Amino acid sequence: MSATLVEIVKASNLKLKPEDDKLGFGRYFTDHMLVMDYSIETGWTGPRITPYEPIALDPAAVIFHYGQTAFEGMKAYRTEDNRILLFRPEKNFSRLNASSERLSMPPINEEEVLEYVKQLISVEKDWVPTSKGTSLYIRPFIIATESFLGLAASKQYKLVVILSPVGSYYTNGIQPVNIKVEEHYTRAVRGGTGMAKTAGNYCATFNAQTKAINEGFSQVLWLDAIEKKYVEEVGTSNVFFKINGEVHTPELSGSILPGITRMSVIEMLRSWGIPVSERRISIEEIYQSYEEGLLEEVFSTGTAAVISPIGELEWQGRKIVINNKSIGAVSEKLYDTLTGIQTGKIADTFNWTTEVN
Amino acid sequence: MSATLVEIVKASNLKLKPEDDKLGFGRYFTDHMLVMDYSIETGWTGPRITPYEPIALDPAAVIFHYGQTAFEGMKAYRTEDNRILLFRPEKNFSRLNASSERLSMPPINEEEVLEYVKQLISVEKDWVPTSKGTSLYIRPFIIATESFLGLAASKQYKLVVILSPVGSYYTNGIQPVNIKVEEHYTRAVRGGTGMAKTAGNYCATFNAQTKAINEGFSQVLWLDAIEKKYVEEVGTSNVFFKINGEVHTPELSGSILPGITRMSVIEMLRSWGIPVSERRISIEEIYQSYEEGLLEEVFSTGTAAVISPIGELEWQGRKIVINNKSIGAVSEKLYDTLTGIQTGKIADTFNWTTEVN
Ligand SMILES: Cc1ncc(COP(=O)(O)O)c(C=O)c1O
Ligand SMILES: Cc1ncc(COP(=O)(O)O)c(C=O)c1O
Repeated sequence: MSATLVEIVKASNLKLKPEDDKLGFGRYFTDHMLVMDYSIETGWTGPRITPYEPIALDPAAVIFHYGQTAFEGMKAYRTEDNRILLFRPEKNFSRLNASSERLSMPPINEEEVLEYVKQLISVEKDWVPTSKGTSLYIRPFIIATESFLGLAASKQYKLVVILSPVGSYYTNGIQPVNIKVEEHYTRAVRGGTGMAKTAGNYCATFNAQTKAINEGFSQVLWLDAIEKKYVEEVGTSNVFFKINGEVHTPELSGSILPGITRMSVIEMLRSWGIPVSERRISIEEIYQSYEEGLLEEVFSTGTAAVISPIGELEWQGRKIVINNKSIGAVSEKLYDTLTGIQTGKIADTFNWTTEVN
Repeated sequence: MSATLVEIVKASNLKLKPEDDKLGFGRYFTDHMLVMDYSIETGWTGPRITPYEPIALDPAAVIFHYGQTAFEGMKAYRTEDNRILLFRPEKNFSRLNASSERLSMPPINEEEVLEYVKQLISVEKDWVPTSKGTSLYIRPFIIATESFLGLAASKQYKLVVILSPVGSYYTNGIQPVNIKVEEHYTRAVRGGTGMAKTAGNYCATFNAQTKAINEGFSQVLWLDAIEKKYVEEVGTSNVFFKINGEVHTPELSGSILPGITRMSVIEMLRSWGIPVSERRISIEEIYQSYEEGLLEEVFSTGTAAVISPIGELEWQGRKIVINNKSIGAVSEKLYDTLTGIQTGKIADTFNWTTEVN
């Protein structure tokens, strides 16, 4: 590994850091960012840490018109003994490359960029918050910057990594949420971009999300776009069902995002001897297992909340209440173990964490 | 109409205008642009013409992460007697609002913005090229600018309109193209964003397009995502089939873009007494009508090429040649009449053009 940054330009004025209990999500950003540029002639060049500052792009930049872009989301956690840990960051950079491939974008050198991100976090180490449940959210993204309105992949890109200290997802303890099964809108379809973490997938969900929130739900559950029958994801997280002692989760069909929390939950459950099957799961089957008294736990997984128990589902006006609207034993154990490993409280027997020096 | 621009800031150095035969598409931009800003508190404010210049956005701007954006594309044509005509521009602005609605974005005042765009074109009138087939391409777009990584509609937006002189689409005369029916990738699906002109729909097509071009085709024909059976669009244009004296085009199902050329072609054909049906059309049916000797013409429609005749289709390895690979009589008459109206050579009996003063 000879990942040496070309340049570090320090910010001349540092921002006041917000209080941990005011953080929320994605509102505050640190003093610096990481930037790299790509052109088809030179490849990726010029990795540098600069002050956090506006990005100036030509109005004809491809990102504004044809949306060529991919992003990632991961967290840095502070341990009780003041170390900074990342959770499986190499998985995020390999997923970034998978997203880029779907979007006709050039790959990055995964190990090299991870090294640069560690250097950035190291520069910003005082921004990693300390209170329980808080973390430093890391947002790498690549945008197409060529100034050209023709319909073709951009020949120029910019990679930017910004950092945002974020609050605890569960300030009032873990509360199981109520979820509406979305019937009209679709998130993604086979042959589309659903397996990629790319901007266009997200704006497409705002209408459905707003409608669900206005109806008193906390999120939507997406069904497959083709038959409107099979479960895909919940909001922007993967979803799991514990039925009669076994755990079931939708298979990676091409239209759902391969979550890193999902992958970790599957590995962890199996290590505990709990069977997990990845397969097509119809919403009908979930309702049926509920009727039979076999639906024990439902939860979603993602970097933001880690594990989010689902207390109620509503589909075609039929509401079901899961585990008395309280968190299930497996959900709780997963949450405690995952967050324990992430924050260094529990021995990392899976070798999932990476320290930032 | 009291659409008064707040401000015109003239560029201090004007660019050299490229020769008409060097224009191509979307490479050159004029000296000025139109800008307006939206915030949830004030609505749309500050319409202004400024020098064409980079847009500076916070790295956390919603456009970069969740892709909230919509755009339009239309053209200004120079007539032989030196007037400047727009073709049904009010349709573009109402489609822009339809796109915005799907993307959870605020509507613009359509008439007002059209007035501003006319003022911009008026300032840039010397940029409207004069050679046959050339025009000034107009690209309005709205981008979400709030600096926030939460998954929610942005509370701030920017509308920008840029202008690009573009060359003739048919420098060597109209050549029917060969098109591949895409089997793997999908462009859009019911319940998704296919009916909106939004960035994420376009980057999603680059992989398929590159593959088709590498295989020697000029574009792909998209099938519906659900059954992979029904014809949707060709590249980024709508598609028509003349079968046994009648014209057929896919209905507006929610996954295809409601093209303004498409709408105009339908109205024009009907005015000529040629029956047009908008309906579901299977690719199987097209091949069958070919076998029966009834497939007379195939063409696609869009602002860029107006009418683009299709000379060959390939689906599952089966190639069919349409009308001997030459342009059909109806396609040609549509092309001549539409471009005639657009450039003021033919009386505009439909009342489709609007003059820029
Ligand atoms: C659409 C979608 N699904 C699932 C996830 C969960 O993935 P991960 O566990 O890697 O955060 C995310 C990202 O958070 C997502 O955006
Ligand atoms: C996906 C798509 N389909 C069809 C069209 C044709 O629409 P119009 O005739 O309004 O240019 C366009 C735009 O040009 C488009 O982007």
